[in-house]
Amino acid sequence: MIRYGSSPMLISEFRVHPIAVADAPLRSSYGLHAPYALRTILELRSTDGLTGISETYGGDQQLATFEALRPRVIGMDPFQLTALWRDLTAVETPGERSQTHMVPGENPADRGTRAFAAIEIACLDLIGRAIGLPLCDVVGGRARDAAPFSAYLFYKHAGGGGTGDDAREDEYGECLTPEAMVRQARQMIANYGFREIKLKGGVLHPEQEIATIQALHAEFGPGYPLRIDPNSAWTVETSVRIGRVLQKELADGGYLEDPAAGIDGMAEVRRRLLAEGNQTPLASNVAVTCFAHVPEVWRKDAVQIVLSDPHYWGGIRKQQQLSSLCEVLGLGVSMHSNNHVGVSMMIMAHAAAASPHLTHACDTHYPWQTERDEVVAGGRVPITNGEVRIPDKPGLGVDLDRDQLARGVERYHRLPYRKRDDEAEMRKHVDPNWKRVLPRW
Amino acid sequence: MIRYGSSPMLISEFRVHPIAVADAPLRSSYGLHAPYALRTILELRSTDGLTGISETYGGDQQLATFEALRPRVIGMDPFQLTALWRDLTAVETPGERSQTHMVPGENPADRGTRAFAAIEIACLDLIGRAIGLPLCDVVGGRARDAAPFSAYLFYKHAGGGGTGDDAREDEYGECLTPEAMVRQARQMIANYGFREIKLKGGVLHPEQEIATIQALHAEFGPGYPLRIDPNSAWTVETSVRIGRVLQKELADGGYLEDPAAGIDGMAEVRRRLLAEGNQTPLASNVAVTCFAHVPEVWRKDAVQIVLSDPHYWGGIRKQQQLSSLCEVLGLGVSMHSNNHVGVSMMIMAHAAAASPHLTHACDTHYPWQTERDEVVAGGRVPITNGEVRIPDKPGLGVDLDRDQLARGVERYHRLPYRKRDDEAEMRKHVDPNWKRVLPRW
Repeated sequence: MIRYGSSPMLISEFRVHPIAVADAPLRSSYGLHAPYALRTILELRSTDGLTGISETYGGDQQLATFEALRPRVIGMDPFQLTALWRDLTAVETPGERSQTHMVPGENPADRGTRAFAAIEIACLDLIGRAIGLPLCDVVGGRARDAAPFSAYLFYKHAGGGGTGDDAREDEYGECLTPEAMVRQARQMIANYGFREIKLKGGVLHPEQEIATIQALHAEFGPGYPLRIDPNSAWTVETSVRIGRVLQKELADGGYLEDPAAGIDGMAEVRRRLLAEGNQTPLASNVAVTCFAHVPEVWRKDAVQIVLSDPHYWGGIRKQQQLSSLCEVLGLGVSMHSNNHVGVSMMIMAHAAAASPHLTHACDTHYPWQTERDEVVAGGRVPITNGEVRIPDKPGLGVDLDRDQLARGVERYHRLPYRKRDDEAEMRKHVDPNWKRVLPRW
Repeated sequence: MIRYGSSPMLISEFRVHPIAVADAPLRSSYGLHAPYALRTILELRSTDGLTGISETYGGDQQLATFEALRPRVIGMDPFQLTALWRDLTAVETPGERSQTHMVPGENPADRGTRAFAAIEIACLDLIGRAIGLPLCDVVGGRARDAAPFSAYLFYKHAGGGGTGDDAREDEYGECLTPEAMVRQARQMIANYGFREIKLKGGVLHPEQEIATIQALHAEFGPGYPLRIDPNSAWTVETSVRIGRVLQKELADGGYLEDPAAGIDGMAEVRRRLLAEGNQTPLASNVAVTCFAHVPEVWRKDAVQIVLSDPHYWGGIRKQQQLSSLCEVLGLGVSMHSNNHVGVSMMIMAHAAAASPHLTHACDTHYPWQTERDEVVAGGRVPITNGEVRIPDKPGLGVDLDRDQLARGVERYHRLPYRKRDDEAEMRKHVDPNWKRVLPRW
């Protein structure tokens, strides 16, 4: 199958492609998604003539980081990832790592781990291509052949993504009521076969969000585990009240995600719910964003399910380490998501396949992007029965469509968006005085 | 460097070689080492015609386990190690995993992880050979080019290892006094350049062992971190007293290893030492032997340095996971050792090289074996300046010497030893009524 020779495979070229991808007007406690989401596509070309690819968060901050790393990457051996991790995280910017006040991908404190992750994954894709094995098999072998994802429902405005000639109404339309949300869920499940449902909350008054979860539960029953994630929009008091009211709806595999801000806030919600005999687990990708947080959330019982993101926790092997860590500590683990295209879809699928301990279906924004913006050759990665199958192809299993990539890059340069700023969008399109206030309710 | 094709590399042959290796009459709280230590050498041959090797604990229990696994191993893809772990640990025998009452390698409760480790390592050696890379680079890249080991001093009788024509006096001679131990340390350091020193204790009356540590400290000073390991032979009271008396000698990178039995005993020793302002860390490979123990020892502050052994914790990747786990929890980590030959020397070296967080030099019994019994081609693995360098060769970096292997196998079959039983040896050679009593002092 594979043969060894004498000269090592080294990185000879490092290409960084910023892209803009049309995104629907989705709401969260951070504000409103802009008409375009930003992503970065990486290519590492080897002295063997092979190319490994990756995808990560977007915007000018990412580009500057990668440009600064160019001398470190060119000439490196793609197998020597431990040394790369050491170098890229040695100068980690100190500061708050939580995402309470910062959208994922914009926190300078995790810039090093984000950059490492993107490069590690491109190296592993390259190695997979060189060896002729899917990425998940390169890092220890798969625990599963397909990765489970959940329907990720959003309150949203009408109008779809994109601007100008590029604007397109999306198929889900406006969604600001329980009835519309049930319709959104039905459509999304019909399209992709998801078996778990997540609602992004923290947008409407809690009573309306309670009604939405109740409507979803009435429609889909206990066979579809339900989660709600208000991104820290609630007080401890409100969180406990909602945990109490929705105890039945969030049972059977569901969870309450980041209801209140901070590890101590989450711990208090948990303590008070447990005191009432309410076992609803708390999940988090806001209070717990890195390895250093895990012992604290475990000791304080603040979080029972860690929602990772290989893009900022440090790549595929760090995802595996987190899976192992959570298994040892008796914590659940799953994955958070940000807007992304097909390369990240495969990154998450391989990360999930290579991590034995994965307790809940992963989030994905993929249904909110469309074929028009997909950069992987052959079109969008299929989600069937709520799962992404690991293709029988080397590395991540996807290649780049050059025309589509060029289209995304052209738009990035033409459009004014340079970072994710949901608060600015909210002020532009909904309320000129809008500010994110935590807790809101 | 490497190329991919269409047919996967599978395991076509599984060869298991039990060997007996002459061993010196070393003492510990378990009793007396027999004239021969037992080890098992594994070979996995692939459909590509390559061979991966491994080494693990010895004796008939190991052989029976491997024979039972033959159908699972033949035909397997050496990259699919996650599935192998799942299968081999799914039927893990329940029971006490500590080594308080059982020498390493003889506990049926870790039979599955031991068997997995041996096969995983042979698969990784095979993969390294197929790809053309050292094993530590296959699993993420090295954190260091050489693995540090410590001088492992033992109280011992005269007479050397082996029996009959095969008996050979060893160069260290009888060692039952502080002066003899200083001589043993000097010899061993002159031979191998070790920079840390471990004394196996729990053998003589504590006052004599205290005097031995004091003599070593007087000879080598604080530049050589010192450890003592009585394998749970002491009461909590004695442990605290010795921790107090030896506070200065065990400072500066030293530790007190498994003074008292059990996680709760260790926690009490720690608590009482800390109450006196004594920060001497406690290390353990007796109270903590598997991942399930780690959160408990952390929560109770019972152990500050986990001494792993890739041979029974589950192989190279599990060693990496443990390194990561201990880093996250703020625990130190290093490696325990059992008698072994050169293949295990390289297993430990690669495990150490591939594990960034490694806080103390690893144990090794290697100085107690000799060239006569080495099974790796070209003779013994060099230890220089107390380190084993990762060779610039694929996989583990060592091959088998067929004649030497045959010699070890012949002796295994000819000799009566079928498991490690230090208590029986103690009765045979020292005291017909000897029994291991815990705590002894």
